[in-house]
Amino acid sequence: MATVGRRPGSTATREEILEAARKLFAQNGYDRTTVRAIAAAAAVNPAMVHYFFGSKEQVFVAALELPVSPAEVVPALLAGPRDQLGERVAAFALALWRDPGTRAPLLALVRSSVDNEQAAGMVREFFNATVISRVADALGVPRFRLAAAIGQGFGLMLFRYVIGIEPLASADEADLAEHLGAMVQHTIDRP
Amino acid sequence: MATVGRRPGSTATREEILEAARKLFAQNGYDRTTVRAIAAAAAVNPAMVHYFFGSKEQVFVAALELPVSPAEVVPALLAGPRDQLGERVAAFALALWRDPGTRAPLLALVRSSVDNEQAAGMVREFFNATVISRVADALGVPRFRLAAAIGQGFGLMLFRYVIGIEPLASADEADLAEHLGAMVQHTIDRP
Repeated sequence: MATVGRRPGSTATREEILEAARKLFAQNGYDRTTVRAIAAAAAVNPAMVHYFFGSKEQVFVAALELPVSPAEVVPALLAGPRDQLGERVAAFALALWRDPGTRAPLLALVRSSVDNEQAAGMVREFFNATVISRVADALGVPRFRLAAAIGQGFGLMLFRYVIGIEPLASADEADLAEHLGAMVQHTIDRP
Repeated sequence: MATVGRRPGSTATREEILEAARKLFAQNGYDRTTVRAIAAAAAVNPAMVHYFFGSKEQVFVAALELPVSPAEVVPALLAGPRDQLGERVAAFALALWRDPGTRAPLLALVRSSVDNEQAAGMVREFFNATVISRVADALGVPRFRLAAAIGQGFGLMLFRYVIGIEPLASADEADLAEHLGAMVQHTIDRP
Protein backbone atom coordinates (compact mmCIF):
# COMPACT_ATOMS: atom_id res chain seq x y z
CA MET A 1 0.00 0.00 0.00
CA ALA A 2 1.13 3.51 -0.73
CA THR A 3 2.36 5.71 2.06
CA VAL A 4 1.82 8.75 -0.09
CA GLY A 5 5.54 9.08 -0.51
CA ARG A 6 6.21 10.48 2.95
CA ARG A 7 8.96 9.29 5.23
CA PRO A 8 7.52 7.81 8.47
CA GLY A 9 9.53 10.33 10.49
CA SER A 10 7.89 13.31 8.83
CA THR A 11 6.46 15.79 11.30
CA ALA A 12 3.90 16.88 8.75
CA THR A 13 2.48 13.34 8.55
CA ARG A 14 2.35 13.02 12.31
CA GLU A 15 0.48 16.30 12.54
CA GLU A 16 -1.88 15.32 9.76
CA ILE A 17 -2.74 12.10 11.55
CA LEU A 18 -3.40 13.98 14.80
CA GLU A 19 -5.51 16.55 12.98
CA ALA A 20 -7.61 13.83 11.35
CA ALA A 21 -7.90 12.01 14.68
CA ARG A 22 -9.10 15.10 16.55
CA LYS A 23 -11.76 15.65 13.94
CA LEU A 24 -13.00 12.06 13.90
CA PHE A 25 -12.95 11.61 17.67
CA ALA A 26 -14.94 14.83 18.12
CA GLN A 27 -17.36 13.89 15.34
CA ASN A 28 -17.93 10.18 15.98
CA GLY A 29 -16.79 9.66 19.55
CA TYR A 30 -14.01 7.42 20.78
CA ASP A 31 -15.69 4.03 20.39
CA ARG A 32 -16.75 4.44 16.77
CA THR A 33 -13.45 5.89 15.57
CA THR A 34 -10.96 3.37 14.23
CA VAL A 35 -7.27 3.59 13.41
CA ARG A 36 -8.26 2.64 9.88
CA ALA A 37 -10.64 5.61 9.60
CA ILE A 38 -8.04 7.99 11.02
CA ALA A 39 -5.48 6.71 8.53
CA ALA A 40 -7.94 7.11 5.66
CA ALA A 41 -8.80 10.66 6.70
CA ALA A 42 -5.10 11.53 6.89
CA ALA A 43 -4.43 9.71 3.60
CA VAL A 44 -1.81 7.43 5.13
CA ASN A 45 -1.44 3.71 5.66
CA PRO A 46 -2.91 2.43 8.97
CA ALA A 47 0.51 0.93 9.67
CA MET A 48 1.87 4.44 9.83
CA VAL A 49 -0.61 5.38 12.55
CA HIS A 50 0.52 2.35 14.52
CA TYR A 51 4.14 3.22 13.82
CA PHE A 52 3.78 6.73 15.21
CA PHE A 53 1.43 6.13 18.11
CA GLY A 54 0.79 2.46 18.81
CA SER A 55 -2.90 1.94 19.56
CA LYS A 56 -6.02 4.04 19.05
CA GLU A 57 -5.84 4.89 22.73
CA GLN A 58 -2.40 6.42 22.26
CA VAL A 59 -3.56 8.35 19.21
CA PHE A 60 -6.28 9.85 21.41
CA VAL A 61 -3.78 10.74 24.15
CA ALA A 62 -1.53 12.46 21.61
CA ALA A 63 -4.38 14.16 19.72
CA LEU A 64 -5.83 15.67 22.90
CA GLU A 65 -2.40 16.29 24.40
CA LEU A 66 -3.36 14.44 27.56
CA PRO A 67 -0.68 14.65 30.22
CA VAL A 68 -0.96 10.92 31.00
CA SER A 69 -1.71 7.77 29.12
CA PRO A 70 -4.06 5.35 30.88
CA ALA A 71 -2.37 2.50 29.01
CA GLU A 72 0.79 3.26 30.98
CA VAL A 73 -0.56 4.66 34.23
CA VAL A 74 -3.24 2.08 35.00
CA PRO A 75 -0.94 -0.98 34.95
CA ALA A 76 1.70 0.95 36.89
CA LEU A 77 -0.79 1.83 39.62
CA LEU A 78 -2.30 -1.65 39.74
CA ALA A 79 1.14 -3.23 40.19
CA GLY A 80 2.14 -3.50 43.83
CA PRO A 81 0.29 -4.48 47.00
CA ARG A 82 -3.48 -4.18 46.77
CA ASP A 83 -3.74 -2.84 50.31
CA GLN A 84 -1.60 0.15 49.30
CA LEU A 85 -3.42 0.93 46.08
CA GLY A 86 -5.29 3.85 47.65
CA GLU A 87 -2.00 5.38 48.69
CA ARG A 88 -0.48 4.97 45.21
CA VAL A 89 -3.53 6.42 43.48
CA ALA A 90 -3.61 9.40 45.85
CA ALA A 91 0.08 10.15 45.29
CA PHE A 92 -0.43 9.93 41.54
CA ALA A 93 -3.55 12.13 41.51
CA LEU A 94 -1.95 14.81 43.67
CA ALA A 95 1.17 14.91 41.48
CA LEU A 96 -1.00 15.21 38.38
CA TRP A 97 -3.14 18.07 39.72
CA ARG A 98 -0.42 19.89 41.65
CA ASP A 99 1.69 20.56 38.56
CA PRO A 100 0.16 23.32 36.41
CA GLY A 101 1.74 21.70 33.34
CA THR A 102 -0.29 18.52 33.72
CA ARG A 103 -3.31 20.21 35.30
CA ALA A 104 -3.91 22.60 32.37
CA PRO A 105 -4.64 19.96 29.69
CA LEU A 106 -6.87 18.07 32.14
CA LEU A 107 -8.82 21.23 32.80
CA ALA A 108 -9.08 21.96 29.10
CA LEU A 109 -10.70 18.56 28.70
CA VAL A 110 -13.09 19.18 31.58
CA ARG A 111 -13.97 22.60 30.21
CA SER A 112 -14.79 21.28 26.77
CA SER A 113 -16.86 18.45 28.30
CA VAL A 114 -18.86 20.94 30.31
CA ASP A 115 -19.35 23.27 27.34
CA ASN A 116 -20.01 20.78 24.62
CA GLU A 117 -22.06 17.60 24.56
CA GLN A 118 -20.06 16.17 21.67
CA ALA A 119 -16.78 16.62 23.54
CA ALA A 120 -18.36 15.10 26.65
CA GLY A 121 -19.38 12.05 24.62
CA MET A 122 -15.85 11.57 23.37
CA VAL A 123 -14.33 11.97 26.83
CA ARG A 124 -16.74 9.60 28.53
CA GLU A 125 -16.24 6.88 25.93
CA PHE A 126 -12.47 7.18 26.20
CA PHE A 127 -12.61 7.19 29.98
CA ASN A 128 -14.91 4.20 30.10
CA ALA A 129 -12.82 2.14 27.71
CA THR A 130 -9.39 2.99 29.09
CA VAL A 131 -9.93 3.53 32.80
CA ILE A 132 -13.26 2.32 34.23
CA SER A 133 -13.49 -1.00 32.38
CA ARG A 134 -9.80 -1.77 32.75
CA VAL A 135 -9.56 -1.06 36.46
CA ALA A 136 -12.93 -2.54 37.43
CA ASP A 137 -12.06 -5.79 35.66
CA ALA A 138 -8.54 -5.94 37.10
CA LEU A 139 -9.72 -5.37 40.66
CA GLY A 140 -13.08 -7.08 40.57
CA VAL A 141 -14.74 -3.90 41.85
CA PRO A 142 -18.22 -2.94 40.56
CA ARG A 143 -18.01 -0.28 37.87
CA PHE A 144 -20.55 1.93 39.58
CA ARG A 145 -18.50 2.09 42.74
CA LEU A 146 -15.25 2.63 40.88
CA ALA A 147 -16.67 5.42 38.69
CA ALA A 148 -18.16 7.04 41.80
CA ALA A 149 -14.80 6.97 43.60
CA ILE A 150 -13.03 8.51 40.62
CA GLY A 151 -15.70 11.20 40.33
CA GLN A 152 -15.33 11.94 44.03
CA GLY A 153 -11.57 12.19 43.78
CA PHE A 154 -11.97 14.43 40.76
CA GLY A 155 -14.28 16.79 42.67
CA LEU A 156 -11.78 16.92 45.51
CA MET A 157 -8.95 17.89 43.14
CA LEU A 158 -11.16 20.50 41.46
CA PHE A 159 -12.08 22.04 44.81
CA ARG A 160 -8.46 22.15 45.97
CA TYR A 161 -6.53 23.06 42.86
CA VAL A 162 -8.97 24.93 40.67
CA ILE A 163 -11.72 26.62 42.65
CA GLY A 164 -9.50 26.81 45.73
CA ILE A 165 -12.13 25.92 48.34
CA GLU A 166 -10.75 26.26 51.85
CA PRO A 167 -9.47 24.61 53.92
CA LEU A 168 -8.73 22.12 51.13
CA ALA A 169 -6.69 24.59 49.09
CA SER A 170 -4.19 25.33 51.85
CA ALA A 171 -4.25 21.90 53.53
CA ASP A 172 -1.04 19.91 53.82
CA GLU A 173 -0.59 17.61 50.89
CA ALA A 174 -0.06 14.73 53.34
CA ASP A 175 -3.56 15.26 54.77
CA LEU A 176 -5.08 15.33 51.32
CA ALA A 177 -3.18 12.21 50.33
CA GLU A 178 -4.36 10.42 53.44
CA HIS A 179 -7.99 11.40 52.90
CA LEU A 180 -8.01 10.54 49.20
CA GLY A 181 -6.06 7.33 49.73
CA ALA A 182 -8.47 6.15 52.43
CA MET A 183 -11.46 6.89 50.22
CA VAL A 184 -9.99 4.95 47.30
CA GLN A 185 -8.87 2.06 49.49
CA HIS A 186 -12.34 1.87 51.07
CA THR A 187 -13.86 1.67 47.57
CA ILE A 188 -11.62 -1.27 46.72
CA ASP A 189 -11.92 -3.13 50.01
CA ARG A 190 -15.67 -2.96 50.50
CA PRO A 191 -17.16 -6.40 49.95
CA MET B 1 -31.06 59.98 53.60
CA ALA B 2 -31.94 60.38 49.98
CA THR B 3 -33.20 57.43 48.00
CA VAL B 4 -32.48 59.33 44.82
CA GLY B 5 -36.20 59.83 44.30
CA ARG B 6 -36.92 56.24 43.21
CA ARG B 7 -39.78 54.18 44.56
CA PRO B 8 -38.51 51.06 46.38
CA GLY B 9 -40.51 48.85 44.04
CA SER B 10 -38.76 50.16 40.94
CA THR B 11 -37.37 47.41 38.73
CA ALA B 12 -34.69 49.76 37.47
CA THR B 13 -33.37 50.28 41.01
CA ARG B 14 -33.35 46.56 41.70
CA GLU B 15 -31.42 45.92 38.50
CA GLU B 16 -29.01 48.74 39.26
CA ILE B 17 -28.26 47.25 42.65
CA LEU B 18 -27.65 43.81 41.11
CA GLU B 19 -25.45 45.31 38.44
CA ALA B 20 -23.36 47.14 41.03
CA ALA B 21 -23.21 44.00 43.18
CA ARG B 22 -21.98 41.80 40.31
CA LYS B 23 -19.24 44.29 39.57
CA LEU B 24 -18.09 44.65 43.18
CA PHE B 25 -18.24 40.93 44.00
CA ALA B 26 -16.18 40.13 40.90
CA GLN B 27 -13.72 42.91 41.60
CA ASN B 28 -13.25 42.65 45.37
CA GLY B 29 -14.50 39.18 46.22
CA TYR B 30 -17.36 38.24 48.52
CA ASP B 31 -15.75 38.95 51.88
CA ARG B 32 -14.58 42.47 51.13
CA THR B 33 -17.82 43.61 49.48
CA THR B 34 -20.33 45.26 51.81
CA VAL B 35 -23.98 46.14 51.42
CA ARG B 36 -22.92 49.74 52.02
CA ALA B 37 -20.47 49.64 49.09
CA ILE B 38 -23.05 48.05 46.81
CA ALA B 39 -25.56 50.73 47.76
CA ALA B 40 -23.03 53.48 47.13
CA ALA B 41 -22.11 52.05 43.72
CA ALA B 42 -25.79 51.86 42.79
CA ALA B 43 -26.40 55.35 44.26
CA VAL B 44 -29.13 54.12 46.61
CA ASN B 45 -29.59 53.99 50.36
CA PRO B 46 -28.24 50.80 52.00
CA ALA B 47 -31.72 50.34 53.48
CA MET B 48 -33.00 49.85 49.98
CA VAL B 49 -30.57 46.99 49.37
CA HIS B 50 -31.83 45.36 52.56
CA TYR B 51 -35.40 46.09 51.53
CA PHE B 52 -35.00 44.31 48.19
CA PHE B 53 -32.76 41.45 49.15
CA GLY B 54 -32.21 41.12 52.89
CA SER B 55 -28.57 40.32 53.56
CA LYS B 56 -25.38 40.53 51.50
CA GLU B 57 -25.65 36.78 51.01
CA GLN B 58 -29.03 37.18 49.36
CA VAL B 59 -27.73 39.99 47.15
CA PHE B 60 -25.05 37.57 45.96
CA VAL B 61 -27.61 34.83 45.29
CA ALA B 62 -29.75 37.23 43.27
CA ALA B 63 -26.82 38.86 41.46
CA LEU B 64 -25.42 35.51 40.30
CA GLU B 65 -28.89 34.04 39.77
CA LEU B 66 -28.05 31.05 41.95
CA PRO B 67 -30.78 28.43 41.95
CA VAL B 68 -30.61 28.04 45.73
CA SER B 69 -29.88 30.22 48.69
CA PRO B 70 -27.61 28.66 51.34
CA ALA B 71 -29.34 30.85 53.95
CA GLU B 72 -32.53 28.87 53.30
CA VAL B 73 -31.23 25.47 52.29
CA VAL B 74 -28.62 24.90 54.99
CA PRO B 75 -30.99 25.32 57.98
CA ALA B 76 -33.64 23.25 56.20
CA LEU B 77 -31.20 20.38 55.65
CA LEU B 78 -29.78 20.59 59.16
CA ALA B 79 -33.25 20.40 60.69
CA GLY B 80 -34.36 16.82 61.30
CA PRO B 81 -32.62 13.72 62.67
CA ARG B 82 -28.83 13.83 62.44
CA ASP B 83 -28.64 10.17 61.46
CA GLN B 84 -30.68 10.91 58.33
CA LEU B 85 -28.76 14.00 57.28
CA GLY B 86 -26.86 12.08 54.58
CA GLU B 87 -30.15 10.96 53.07
CA ARG B 88 -31.58 14.50 53.08
CA VAL B 89 -28.44 16.01 51.55
CA ALA B 90 -28.36 13.35 48.82
CA ALA B 91 -32.03 13.91 47.93
CA PHE B 92 -31.43 17.65 47.77
CA ALA B 93 -28.26 17.39 45.67
CA LEU B 94 -29.85 15.00 43.19
CA ALA B 95 -32.90 17.23 42.78
CA LEU B 96 -30.66 20.24 42.22
CA TRP B 97 -28.50 18.58 39.58
CA ARG B 98 -31.21 16.52 37.90
CA ASP B 99 -33.23 19.58 36.88
CA PRO B 100 -31.58 21.42 33.94
CA GLY B 101 -33.13 24.67 35.19
CA THR B 102 -31.18 24.56 38.46
CA ARG B 103 -28.16 22.75 37.00
CA ALA B 104 -27.42 25.39 34.35
CA PRO B 105 -26.69 28.31 36.72
CA LEU B 106 -24.55 26.03 38.90
CA LEU B 107 -22.57 24.99 35.86
CA ALA B 108 -22.18 28.59 34.77
CA LEU B 109 -20.63 29.30 38.15
CA VAL B 110 -18.29 26.31 37.89
CA ARG B 111 -17.32 27.30 34.38
CA SER B 112 -16.44 30.85 35.36
CA SER B 113 -14.48 29.57 38.38
CA VAL B 114 -12.46 27.26 36.16
CA ASP B 115 -11.84 29.96 33.56
CA ASN B 116 -11.17 32.92 35.76
CA GLU B 117 -9.20 33.25 38.98
CA GLN B 118 -11.15 36.33 40.05
CA ALA B 119 -14.46 34.49 39.71
CA ALA B 120 -13.00 31.51 41.57
CA GLY B 121 -12.01 33.82 44.43
CA MET B 122 -15.50 35.20 44.68
CA VAL B 123 -17.11 31.77 44.60
CA ARG B 124 -14.81 30.25 47.20
CA GLU B 125 -15.30 33.14 49.62
CA PHE B 126 -19.05 32.92 49.25
CA PHE B 127 -19.01 29.17 49.64
CA ASN B 128 -16.78 29.29 52.67
CA ALA B 129 -18.86 31.94 54.44
CA THR B 130 -22.31 30.55 53.66
CA VAL B 131 -21.86 26.78 53.50
CA ILE B 132 -18.59 25.42 54.91
CA SER B 133 -18.39 27.58 58.05
CA ARG B 134 -22.10 27.38 58.77
CA VAL B 135 -22.42 23.61 58.43
CA ALA B 136 -19.11 22.72 60.09
CA ASP B 137 -20.02 24.83 63.10
CA ALA B 138 -23.57 23.50 63.33
CA LEU B 139 -22.47 19.87 63.15
CA GLY B 140 -19.14 20.07 64.93
CA VAL B 141 -17.45 18.42 61.93
CA PRO B 142 -13.92 19.53 60.94
CA ARG B 143 -13.99 21.94 58.00
CA PHE B 144 -11.44 19.96 56.04
CA ARG B 145 -13.57 16.84 56.15
CA LEU B 146 -16.76 18.72 55.35
CA ALA B 147 -15.22 20.57 52.39
CA ALA B 148 -13.77 17.27 51.14
CA ALA B 149 -17.17 15.57 51.30
CA ILE B 150 -18.84 18.42 49.42
CA GLY B 151 -16.09 18.36 46.78
CA GLN B 152 -16.53 14.63 46.41
CA GLY B 153 -20.29 14.93 46.05
CA PHE B 154 -19.76 17.69 43.52
CA GLY B 155 -17.46 15.50 41.43
CA LEU B 156 -20.02 12.71 41.53
CA MET B 157 -22.77 15.04 40.25
CA LEU B 158 -20.46 16.39 37.55
CA PHE B 159 -19.58 12.88 36.37
CA ARG B 160 -23.23 11.79 36.28
CA TYR B 161 -25.07 14.84 35.02
CA VAL B 162 -22.52 16.78 33.00
CA ILE B 163 -19.79 14.56 31.58
CA GLY B 164 -22.09 11.54 31.65
CA ILE B 165 -19.53 8.98 32.86
CA GLU B 166 -21.00 5.47 32.84
CA PRO B 167 -22.36 3.62 34.66
CA LEU B 168 -23.09 6.66 36.85
CA ALA B 169 -25.03 8.49 34.13
CA SER B 170 -27.57 5.73 33.61
CA ALA B 171 -27.65 4.40 37.20
CA ASP B 172 -30.90 4.39 39.13
CA GLU B 173 -31.32 7.55 41.12
CA ALA B 174 -31.97 5.42 44.21
CA ASP B 175 -28.51 3.86 43.92
CA LEU B 176 -26.90 7.26 43.54
CA ALA B 177 -28.86 8.61 46.50
CA GLU B 178 -27.78 5.67 48.62
CA HIS B 179 -24.12 6.02 47.67
CA LEU B 180 -24.02 9.78 48.15
CA GLY B 181 -26.06 9.64 51.35
CA ALA B 182 -23.76 7.02 52.86
CA MET B 183 -20.69 9.08 51.97
CA VAL B 184 -22.12 12.22 53.58
CA GLN B 185 -23.36 10.36 56.64
CA HIS B 186 -19.94 8.72 57.07
CA THR B 187 -18.36 12.19 56.96
CA ILE B 188 -20.64 13.40 59.75
CA ASP B 189 -20.47 10.31 61.93
CA ARG B 190 -16.71 9.72 61.92
CA PRO B 191 -15.33 10.57 65.33
